[in-house]
Amino acid sequence: MASWLQIPKNSPFSLANIPFGIISTQSTSKAAAIAIGDHALDLSAFASSGGFSQLPAIEKHLAVFSQPTLNDFAALGRPVHRQVREYLQNIFRADTKFPQLLKDNTSLQQSALLPLSQVTNHLPMQIGDYTDFYAGLNHAYNIGVLFRGPDNALQPNYKHLPVAYHGRASSVVPSGTPSTVPRKLDIELELACFIGKPNDLGKPVPIDQAEDHIFGLVLMNDWSARDIQAWEYIPLGPFNAKNFGTTITPWVVLIDALEPFRAPGLEPANRESLLPYLREKRAESAYEIPLDIEVTNPGGQPTVIANSNARNLLYSFPQMVAHHTITGCNLRTGDLLGSGTISGKEAKTQGSFLEQTNGKVPLKLADGSERMFLEDGDTVTLRGMAGTEGNYVGFGDCVGTILPAVSLQ
Amino acid sequence: MASWLQIPKNSPFSLANIPFGIISTQSTSKAAAIAIGDHALDLSAFASSGGFSQLPAIEKHLAVFSQPTLNDFAALGRPVHRQVREYLQNIFRADTKFPQLLKDNTSLQQSALLPLSQVTNHLPMQIGDYTDFYAGLNHAYNIGVLFRGPDNALQPNYKHLPVAYHGRASSVVPSGTPSTVPRKLDIELELACFIGKPNDLGKPVPIDQAEDHIFGLVLMNDWSARDIQAWEYIPLGPFNAKNFGTTITPWVVLIDALEPFRAPGLEPANRESLLPYLREKRAESAYEIPLDIEVTNPGGQPTVIANSNARNLLYSFPQMVAHHTITGCNLRTGDLLGSGTISGKEAKTQGSFLEQTNGKVPLKLADGSERMFLEDGDTVTLRGMAGTEGNYVGFGDCVGTILPAVSLQ
Repeated sequence: MASWLQIPKNSPFSLANIPFGIISTQSTSKAAAIAIGDHALDLSAFASSGGFSQLPAIEKHLAVFSQPTLNDFAALGRPVHRQVREYLQNIFRADTKFPQLLKDNTSLQQSALLPLSQVTNHLPMQIGDYTDFYAGLNHAYNIGVLFRGPDNALQPNYKHLPVAYHGRASSVVPSGTPSTVPRKLDIELELACFIGKPNDLGKPVPIDQAEDHIFGLVLMNDWSARDIQAWEYIPLGPFNAKNFGTTITPWVVLIDALEPFRAPGLEPANRESLLPYLREKRAESAYEIPLDIEVTNPGGQPTVIANSNARNLLYSFPQMVAHHTITGCNLRTGDLLGSGTISGKEAKTQGSFLEQTNGKVPLKLADGSERMFLEDGDTVTLRGMAGTEGNYVGFGDCVGTILPAVSLQ
Repeated sequence: MASWLQIPKNSPFSLANIPFGIISTQSTSKAAAIAIGDHALDLSAFASSGGFSQLPAIEKHLAVFSQPTLNDFAALGRPVHRQVREYLQNIFRADTKFPQLLKDNTSLQQSALLPLSQVTNHLPMQIGDYTDFYAGLNHAYNIGVLFRGPDNALQPNYKHLPVAYHGRASSVVPSGTPSTVPRKLDIELELACFIGKPNDLGKPVPIDQAEDHIFGLVLMNDWSARDIQAWEYIPLGPFNAKNFGTTITPWVVLIDALEPFRAPGLEPANRESLLPYLREKRAESAYEIPLDIEVTNPGGQPTVIANSNARNLLYSFPQMVAHHTITGCNLRTGDLLGSGTISGKEAKTQGSFLEQTNGKVPLKLADGSERMFLEDGDTVTLRGMAGTEGNYVGFGDCVGTILPAVSLQ
């Protein structure tokens, strides 16, 4: 797909993507937007100038684009999201059917099509609850060995259902927010999904309907204090080790934009051990999405410390939704579900420091310095891009810089 | 304190209490209210009739009483809550200084002073995050013995800091909401506090300021599916075992109303083992509040199965706030912090079925039937009242009836 807008070939926000977010500028308050190449299209300004006049399905819902979060848009459901995405792809195509709406409307381009460098990103959703799963098999095994030894690394439940813990919603922040954090600070490379369509308390979501409850995906860094975690995690799981901050990318990639990248998971199918309510019809329940972790030292030199892939997840997001609700638990629009850390099996494919160092051998950065854990002034950048040059479907950078640890005074 | 309003001597809502909640009636939408004896005073109606005209401190904030939650009122802070409570005590006193405002205003009484039997209670707060602690020493020990044996019953961390897990906010419901629930269903008798004054991300709350961040307390039943819990809880803690429902009383008892009932905890002080940021100045950090559990079988016959006391908590709510925020975690107005199950040491003082039966000896109900866990049609009522007849400060009933388990179809 070619666009009349110049889109850099290596942009995560190609015409094949169309991710949604919340932006503001020096002169405008929060509004919904999409990212396209190096630009954001302010959907509130676009809508009020008649931009959606050729899409009757959204006409009576245009107010959702002027809200300070995407919740109202997400709640409209997947068929609407799909139509809006395809409509906006058409608007930006070189051979758009509606050139008068934006391609040939330079005054609207000036007011609504903004360079990304001039907009501020905000948290895309109001998050009610945040749940973090543990669906990365290699990560669960690696951490299990370190915390409990190889004999108890994977619990007996692990291949039967996706285990999870309730996370802290208040401290989820958008990419770029600095973190003031405890000692022995680690990262966790994750994907996460936002819930669009809610379910009522007492009404489980069947596995074959679960995907339609998902609005879209973001990249996530689940900052983790390993000294606190080891000390506190039995019997109630992580608490202070993970409640001080979780960073997400601010652009939500719709579940439909990821459809071309479906792939079987890298592990042998576990259908036999799966509880019946988790059995999906299709085998391609994972996504082929290469994922990177880059650490930039305080001097400014970057080092890519890991390359992983979303195919390392043992459970899919629809399985997480089905499991979460099997008790009748209600998921609300805006709830965030993390995948758990995504690690491969080989060296330099693990999604956390702890797994790469085994608590013994420090990581070497490009400037020759060593790390067992993060240090003050380090910047961590997670990246994920599916597809090929010119047609990437990516998440953009998930960035956090480490400030000195908090103190009581 | 005597009132011009007739207040039953055994009411949990004496003039010494003045708890806050959200009510509606057949003809009015949600509004703030207090409970007083067998009545609710609709504060929105009271305010709009000039009821607060003699309290200048609240005059510019009267809109908080017309909101569908108490969050805006709670965010005003403890000094305002204290003034409003004392003012309303004055309004209802036999020797009120302002008889014209309600005592002698029969038309306002008719529109604003409503029999509790004619109002519907709602969730008092919009809950951002819900955290559940594990501060009941006897409960932690009893459950630890059952799940891990006596040698590992209490983890090494237990007497150093209050352990906790993140709970599920979406499924917190007000007393009276029926539960559709899994098998091996148990109850957990808890107190919980609502946060009033928030703290910023990155700014821990010092222990000596922690109490001023607490709006008030409710009684809570943290419904727990024990078969799921045993299967899923290592290594990430309880998830599906506790995400399907949590019942709270709808009237928030202000922290100031509980001040006369301060008492030392029943366990030896653990100051030596406490981490420094948790050391309180005063020894009376617990409350003398008798707590009961009643189970009513489907035939309608009630049995009191346990009598416990809030003094069994090893940690105070200010300690929970200080611990929760020591990493910089932000607490928001409306966040809910549970105490953990409150059990005594003697027979019939434990706050859950699992502890009373030890998984072996069934409980006997008054009708001769036996219970290892709850059964469909059972009703559980938690009660807690501090003080003495005529001056009780109580929470009202925390009620839930068990409906048949959910199924996927």
